Amino acid sequence: MKERGLLIVFSGPSGVGKGTVRAKIFNSPDINLKYSVSMTTRAQRPGEVDGKDYYFRSRDYFEETVREGQMLEYAEYVGNYYGTPLREVNRMLDEGYDVMLEIEVQGALQVKEKVPDGVFIFLTPPDLSELRHRLTGRGTDSKAVIDERMIKAREEIHMMAAYDYVVENDVVDLAAERVKKIIQAEHFSVDRLIGKYEAMLEEYKVEKEVTKL
Amino acid sequence: MKERGLLIVFSGPSGVGKGTVRAKIFNSPDINLKYSVSMTTRAQRPGEVDGKDYYFRSRDYFEETVREGQMLEYAEYVGNYYGTPLREVNRMLDEGYDVMLEIEVQGALQVKEKVPDGVFIFLTPPDLSELRHRLTGRGTDSKAVIDERMIKAREEIHMMAAYDYVVENDVVDLAAERVKKIIQAEHFSVDRLIGKYEAMLEEYKVEKEVTKL
Repeated sequence: MKERGLLIVFSGPSGVGKGTVRAKIFNSPDINLKYSVSMTTRAQRPGEVDGKDYYFRSRDYFEETVREGQMLEYAEYVGNYYGTPLREVNRMLDEGYDVMLEIEVQGALQVKEKVPDGVFIFLTPPDLSELRHRLTGRGTDSKAVIDERMIKAREEIHMMAAYDYVVENDVVDLAAERVKKIIQAEHFSVDRLIGKYEAMLEEYKVEKEVTKL
Repeated sequence: MKERGLLIVFSGPSGVGKGTVRAKIFNSPDINLKYSVSMTTRAQRPGEVDGKDYYFRSRDYFEETVREGQMLEYAEYVGNYYGTPLREVNRMLDEGYDVMLEIEVQGALQVKEKVPDGVFIFLTPPDLSELRHRLTGRGTDSKAVIDERMIKAREEIHMMAAYDYVVENDVVDLAAERVKKIIQAEHFSVDRLIGKYEAMLEEYKVEKEVTKL
C-alpha cells in the first residue's frame, strides 16, 4: 500500500496573491504535488477548460454534491458556488500524492474541522510584518490610515491563529520556496511517521503468530 | 530587540551518525546556526581545543554548574560528565541565532522538559525504514536476527515519540538537507510567529494611549 499524501491547505486573505504563489510552486521541477480543481456554478469564461481551471456544473448538481457530503468545503460568492469535491482529493491522497487546495479563509476553516491533520498555510501580505516599522515609524501616515490598517491587521492575525504556518508574500519566488520547504519538512513530522513505524512492528507481530501455528 | 532564535535539539541513538550529519550541516553556506559547545570532565585529547571541541573542566566545576541550575542537560558516561551549559545557549538565542545541540537521547528528554518549544529532531538509522522489506522479505535473515532487530526497533520508535521530527540517515548529504529544511520551515510556524504579530498590535495600543494624554 502506498503512503497517503498530505493535504496542503493554502489560504489567506483575498488579494494576497495566493494564485501567483501557487502557480510558481507548481512550475517547480522538484515537487510531487497535485492541485485540487474546484467546482463552481459560475459561467465558463473564454479560454477556461472544464476539469482544469474548474469543474463547471449546474446549481442543482452542486447542491446535490453538498447534500451527499461530497464537498470538502464550499462557499457562495456573488451568487455563485465554489467548492472542493472530496472524492478526487481522497483519490489523489490515496495514490500517495500531496494535494494542494488554494482556498479562501472561510473554506480553510471548514477543512480544518474535517481534516485537522492537514497542513494549513496562511499567506500573509508583507504589510503585516512591516507594521512595526510603520508604527514605531516616521510619521508619514495619518492616524486614520494607521488605525484602518490596524483593524485589518487585527482581523488577519485572528485568522492566522487557526493555521500551522504563516508565510509572508514579500517576493513571489521566496514565498513559493518557503511553502515548498514547509511541505517537505512536514513529511518528517513524528506525528505522521510514527504510525507507519508502529504499523511495521504490528505487521511483524502478526506474522510471528502466524508462523507459530 | 532581536527575535529570539530556535533551540534545535539534534539527537538519536548512539552510533547513528549525528556528528557526521551535524558537520555537514555546519559546512553549508546558507545557514544561520550556532553550535552549542558541551562541557566535559574527560581529559583533553591531543588536537582538541578547549572552547571549540568541548569546555574541559574539573568535576568540581561541573558539579557546581549543575547545582547552580546552569546546565540545560547533562549525563555521565564511563565515569565522565558531559553537559550543555545554559548561559551560552541563552546568549546565542537572545542574539537571534538558532542554536543546535547534538546530544544523546537521555539529554534530549531533559531538554524537552525545560524547553518544550525547542525543535526536537530524531536521527534514525535507515534500518528502521527498511524494516518492511526485511519483514515481508526474502527470508535471508534468521529468526533470531530479526527478533533482535525488532527489539531494537521497538526501543527506537518509543524514543522518537517524544520528538517533533524523524530524519532518516540513509545518505549523509540528504539527511543534512532534511534537517536544514526542518529548521527553515519551523521559522514559519504560526505558534512562533503569532506572538510577534500580537506584540506589534499591543505596542500600537500602548502608543495610542500615550498619544491621547
